Amino acid sequence: MPASETKSFDVVGIGNAIVDVLVTSDDAFLDNHGLTKGTMALVDESQAERLYASVGPGLETSGGSAANTLAGLAQLSGRAAFIGRVRDDQLGAIFAHDIRSVGAHFETPAATVGPSTARCLILVTPDAQRTMCTYLGASVNLHPADLDLDLVRQAKVLYLEGYLWDSDEAKQAFISAAQVMRESGGEVALSLSDAFCVDRHRRSFQELVDGHVDILFANEMEITSLYEANSFEEAVDHVRGRCKVAALTRSAEGSLVLRGDQTVPIAPFRLGELVDTTGAGDLYAAGFLYGHTRGESLERCGRLGSLCAGKVVTQLGPRPQGSLAELVAQHLP
Amino acid sequence: MPASETKSFDVVGIGNAIVDVLVTSDDAFLDNHGLTKGTMALVDESQAERLYASVGPGLETSGGSAANTLAGLAQLSGRAAFIGRVRDDQLGAIFAHDIRSVGAHFETPAATVGPSTARCLILVTPDAQRTMCTYLGASVNLHPADLDLDLVRQAKVLYLEGYLWDSDEAKQAFISAAQVMRESGGEVALSLSDAFCVDRHRRSFQELVDGHVDILFANEMEITSLYEANSFEEAVDHVRGRCKVAALTRSAEGSLVLRGDQTVPIAPFRLGELVDTTGAGDLYAAGFLYGHTRGESLERCGRLGSLCAGKVVTQLGPRPQGSLAELVAQHLP
Repeated sequence: MPASETKSFDVVGIGNAIVDVLVTSDDAFLDNHGLTKGTMALVDESQAERLYASVGPGLETSGGSAANTLAGLAQLSGRAAFIGRVRDDQLGAIFAHDIRSVGAHFETPAATVGPSTARCLILVTPDAQRTMCTYLGASVNLHPADLDLDLVRQAKVLYLEGYLWDSDEAKQAFISAAQVMRESGGEVALSLSDAFCVDRHRRSFQELVDGHVDILFANEMEITSLYEANSFEEAVDHVRGRCKVAALTRSAEGSLVLRGDQTVPIAPFRLGELVDTTGAGDLYAAGFLYGHTRGESLERCGRLGSLCAGKVVTQLGPRPQGSLAELVAQHLP
Repeated sequence: MPASETKSFDVVGIGNAIVDVLVTSDDAFLDNHGLTKGTMALVDESQAERLYASVGPGLETSGGSAANTLAGLAQLSGRAAFIGRVRDDQLGAIFAHDIRSVGAHFETPAATVGPSTARCLILVTPDAQRTMCTYLGASVNLHPADLDLDLVRQAKVLYLEGYLWDSDEAKQAFISAAQVMRESGGEVALSLSDAFCVDRHRRSFQELVDGHVDILFANEMEITSLYEANSFEEAVDHVRGRCKVAALTRSAEGSLVLRGDQTVPIAPFRLGELVDTTGAGDLYAAGFLYGHTRGESLERCGRLGSLCAGKVVTQLGPRPQGSLAELVAQHLP
């Protein structure tokens, strides 16, 4: 029996533990505040407060890129665990409740001192694009010593979000976990998270992809930025063969899954009016990894990713309401 | 110039300052937890925690019956003020942000000790009905001494939610404010809030309606309960003439507005698929009072109420997203 068959979890994810504040906005607001549509900017606590004071009423809901992926995997009936740091405050309790309530394992102890739980102000414009301003708060205090490496060993796949690279502590935790994962016979998956994030850490991400990553998730802007390529096609040539699988998403054009010489194009799912693209990439990864950890074909993994992403963009917020398992039964029986 | 023309606010509301936790649910869950669909039940902190632990992921958003009404009035460009008590915690900051960000005046100091900000767990079933479990927390500590009576004197209408009757302190604050309001030449409006709430305080509400209330808002169940009537028609006969205006809502059947011998039936607005009835009564009152404080006809007041209620039921949560002023310009120019 291969090692992966004896594992207790399909995927364990490490990421920032964030509560999102969703606010409807317009292009003028983004311009006035120097924000680039579709990207994520880091802000400190006072910038976060100032920005919050200038926006309309919000909807609060659990977020965080890897956390959204693991919650989605749990909603698909996958065995999911998440590692991330909240503070012992009200938003931290909301985060913990939400991820546990869909069946994901989440036991990272909340910080009892230091910054409050991370918040991400998400400005949703009428074109359904989301622009994010993140205050990392307690999230950056995920130290290597806090990592539950036994939990990592119990999973088939370790999933890491690129955003963690913005904290040195979290980055170290991340690399330790990847080494442990490979020693225990599992796979390492990475999401590049954001084009600006890739820009901040390009060389480091390139080394990570070459040395540690089995499965890479990236959108068109991120993969193009990673290799400073002039086109998507050129970026595809660069990444091919550097990791076992690369799943490259292209919004309305669907996605492209690469393995060795294989190239599998995946059509997008359109399940309704486009409302908010928040969580699209995260849910693509959820569907893909759900298929992958069940040994499904590349095409079916891509279709599962595409279906979950197609669902989350029809609603406000980064985690789909309702059952994803039923959605799969209906569209991909 | 009549006194009301010199007022700085159209409406000042007093109510519980609550953050809602919206969760999708089903009938079986309500049955298993002994909850009656469509009503509001009060829970203590430990019941609230137990119930929260048993539900799926939530969406957090500011609520509170009168607070929703005043936020709606502000979104209509009415001059709105709200009085209610939060704690100085994260949920309290969310509540304060949301109501101020739509332009309502909210300056009640947050409590620095005692229970946390009030939360209402709202279970939304597939039929779009909402069932509420409220932990009143800091809300019940609104003492008469905390009331800003100068603010009350500055408003044309004082709006009170019946839910406040569940706290003796708040009830006293409520009655003091009503007396001040009448002395200053303004009007007093009351929403009966909930049939069970009416049941708990029937005699007291009857006296309030007879002695203090100019404008009464109630749905069919509430007005029937208030007079222990056998039918809606019987309840209409009971209430007629007891206050200047009674606006009685009947869900899909629209509403009935009474003044003296006049009876004005108002048709409902259907603006889309019914998603969640949370806030329907609150937004009806917002639209009605917006018209009333501008001296509009009874029929137009009712139509404005109906339009705002028709909008909020097409989305999840108790406060409409987007501009209500634009909605009025479009549907009731």
